[in-house]
Amino acid sequence: MSDPSPTPEGKLSRAAAQRLSQYLRFARTLAEADGTVSSVELAEAVGVSAAQVRRDLASLGHLGQRGVGYDAGGLVSALRKAIGVDRRWRVVLVGVGNLAKALLKYRGFADHGFDVVGLFDSAPGTIGTTVEGLTVEPTATLAAAVKRLRAELGVLTVPADAAQPVADAMVAAGLKGLMNFAPVRIKVPSGVSVVPVDLAIQLEQLAFAVHFNEPDESPQGEPRV
Amino acid sequence: MSDPSPTPEGKLSRAAAQRLSQYLRFARTLAEADGTVSSVELAEAVGVSAAQVRRDLASLGHLGQRGVGYDAGGLVSALRKAIGVDRRWRVVLVGVGNLAKALLKYRGFADHGFDVVGLFDSAPGTIGTTVEGLTVEPTATLAAAVKRLRAELGVLTVPADAAQPVADAMVAAGLKGLMNFAPVRIKVPSGVSVVPVDLAIQLEQLAFAVHFNEPDESPQGEPRV
Repeated sequence: MSDPSPTPEGKLSRAAAQRLSQYLRFARTLAEADGTVSSVELAEAVGVSAAQVRRDLASLGHLGQRGVGYDAGGLVSALRKAIGVDRRWRVVLVGVGNLAKALLKYRGFADHGFDVVGLFDSAPGTIGTTVEGLTVEPTATLAAAVKRLRAELGVLTVPADAAQPVADAMVAAGLKGLMNFAPVRIKVPSGVSVVPVDLAIQLEQLAFAVHFNEPDESPQGEPRV
Repeated sequence: MSDPSPTPEGKLSRAAAQRLSQYLRFARTLAEADGTVSSVELAEAVGVSAAQVRRDLASLGHLGQRGVGYDAGGLVSALRKAIGVDRRWRVVLVGVGNLAKALLKYRGFADHGFDVVGLFDSAPGTIGTTVEGLTVEPTATLAAAVKRLRAELGVLTVPADAAQPVADAMVAAGLKGLMNFAPVRIKVPSGVSVVPVDLAIQLEQLAFAVHFNEPDESPQGEPRV
C-alpha cells in the first residue's frame, strides 16, 4: 500500500473502490463511538456478502481479528488511505446555479475531505456575488485562479451546451478530476478523470427497475435471492 | 418485447439498462434533427465499443440497416420502451431543502418523462410554502396524498437520520421506487426499488481515480487502451 501507482495485480477496480467508499461511510458512524465492526455488519450495511467484505478488506492489510471484528477507527484510516481520501482535496465549482448552491450547502463534501475553495460563473449578474462565503469569479479567470487556489478537482454544474468548453477550460487550468453534473458526456485528455452524475439517467434507471419489477440495485441493493 | 416481465434469458442487467439510457440521451439530440445514427457514433458518444452497441441494440428488435445506421427517432422510441420511459411517471419529493429546490428547477426530469406532482416536508416553516408552483404538504399526510396524486416514484432529499423512517412512510404510502439522496443506505421491502445517489461517495470515487491516476470511468469513460 506504500506505492500509490496502480499495478495490474494490486489495482482496485472501480466497483471495488465504490464498495470501499460504502464500507467507509458505515465505519465512520461506528468509529465515532469507538466501536468494532464485523464483516457481517459491513455486508449487511452495504448489501454484499460477508465473504466479499473479507476479500475486499484483506487487500488493505491486517485489520481484523477473527471473532472480534475490525476496529472501526483503524478501518476508517485504512479505507481512507486505500481510496485516496486520507488527505483533503481542494475543489472549484463552475456554474453557480441552484444545483451548485445546493451542493455548497451540503456538508457531506467537507465532512469527506473536500473543500470548495473557488466558485466561477460566466454570467455578469452572478460574478461578484457571494455564496456560502465565497465570491463568484469569472470563468475566464479560471486558469490563474486554479493555480492561486491550488485546486485539483472541479465540479461542473453548467448547462449541457456549456459543458464541453467549460471542461476544456478546467482541464487547461490544470484540474485533474471533474465531477460532471451536466447531462452530456464530456471528453477529457488521458490523465484527467471524470465522474459523471446524470440525475435524469439515474431516474430512468429507477423507472426501469420499477417497470420491470427488479428490486435489486447494485452495489447498494439487497442481495439477490 | 411485448412481455414486460423480465425473464432469466431476456432480462437486461442494470449495466445494460444504463447503457440504453446513455444511447437514449445521445439519440434524443439527433432525433430532433430527424437524423440517423451509426453504432460507431453511439459507441463514441457513450464510451463503449461499437460491437457492444450493436449487441445491446440487437435485443431491441430490427432497428438498423447495415451501412445506413439507425433512424434516430425510431431508436428513441425503442429505447424508451426498453427502459420503461415510453410513458410519464408521477413523482413526489420528500424533504424540501436546497437540493430539492435545485432538482425542481432541473428541467431534465420533466424532459425525460418524470413529473413532480407533490412536495412534502415535516418542518412547520416549510409546510404551506410554494416551490416551483407546488405547495409543500406535511410528510404525515403522505399516504393519502400519494393515492390522490397517483404517484409511483419518490425522491428522498432528507437528512441521513430521517431517511429510513421517511422511506418507510413512502413505501407504506404505496410508492414503488425511491431515489435516495440521503447519505445512508435505506432498507425497503422486496418489490420496491431504490436508486441511491450519494454525492460524497461519487466525489470519493473521483478522488480515488485522480489519486491513483486512473483516467477511465465506466460506463461513460473512454475505452481503456
